[in-house]
Amino acid sequence: MNDLDIRPAGAADIQAIVDMLADDPLGAQRESPDDLTPYLAAHQRLADDPNQHLMVAVRADRVVGTLQLTVIPGLSRKGAVRSVIEAVRVHADERGSGLGTRLIEWAVEESRRQGCRLVQLTSDATRADAHRFYERLGFQASHIGFKLAL
Amino acid sequence: MNDLDIRPAGAADIQAIVDMLADDPLGAQRESPDDLTPYLAAHQRLADDPNQHLMVAVRADRVVGTLQLTVIPGLSRKGAVRSVIEAVRVHADERGSGLGTRLIEWAVEESRRQGCRLVQLTSDATRADAHRFYERLGFQASHIGFKLAL
Repeated sequence: MNDLDIRPAGAADIQAIVDMLADDPLGAQRESPDDLTPYLAAHQRLADDPNQHLMVAVRADRVVGTLQLTVIPGLSRKGAVRSVIEAVRVHADERGSGLGTRLIEWAVEESRRQGCRLVQLTSDATRADAHRFYERLGFQASHIGFKLAL
Repeated sequence: MNDLDIRPAGAADIQAIVDMLADDPLGAQRESPDDLTPYLAAHQRLADDPNQHLMVAVRADRVVGTLQLTVIPGLSRKGAVRSVIEAVRVHADERGSGLGTRLIEWAVEESRRQGCRLVQLTSDATRADAHRFYERLGFQASHIGFKLAL
């Protein structure tokens, strides 16, 4: 559809983003959409960092998707810059609309524009649908993702 | 051993870091230790970014290990800050000395000091020894790591 806009998230978008983060089998246990205080503080920190891109997809003035793109310089691979995609969410009403693809394509294009040589992300091992989705978009499931909660 | 120092990498350490990146079955095909130009540019960019910590482990004035720690704010998990460990390398002479453990323990402690709620990393699916190493240190292999080369 033509009326989709992907743009940086403002403070007024945070409630809609948090509602999407919480509307998910894993997120429901981890988020607190009734108290935006910690999310607004995090948004300010992201907005102040030129390597952070917290984005929303907006259709007809309504936030229907989000992702976070982080640009990471590094020495490996002859000083290659890479990007990391986190926190991809599509509103329940929009699933199957191709919006997830649009969001990832945006992230890949923006990474290319910024000179990244590699785009990476991790997906919970239980999210089988997400794995097929990323493989269809050309990503290779070449790594194991390890996490340590503090 | 007591004489190990873990400190931020300076420009004078870059040759030793690149030599370690290249001394590896995967790195040998990807690095160019005879031309430091792109690595020095990357080092400057890392040094200018307060969320980036490119570290070296030094023993008796010799660089024997390295890692890169990136601090990533975000909205997920009630605005939790996370950290990402990349480019962990231990000099061939030091393997089995416990230096890898010291480096990861440093990264976990620094992440905790900076208020991170999660430490994450990805490891190539072919590096079986590395996977056992991270699991021994308490990391959970809960995710699949996807990469797209640009």
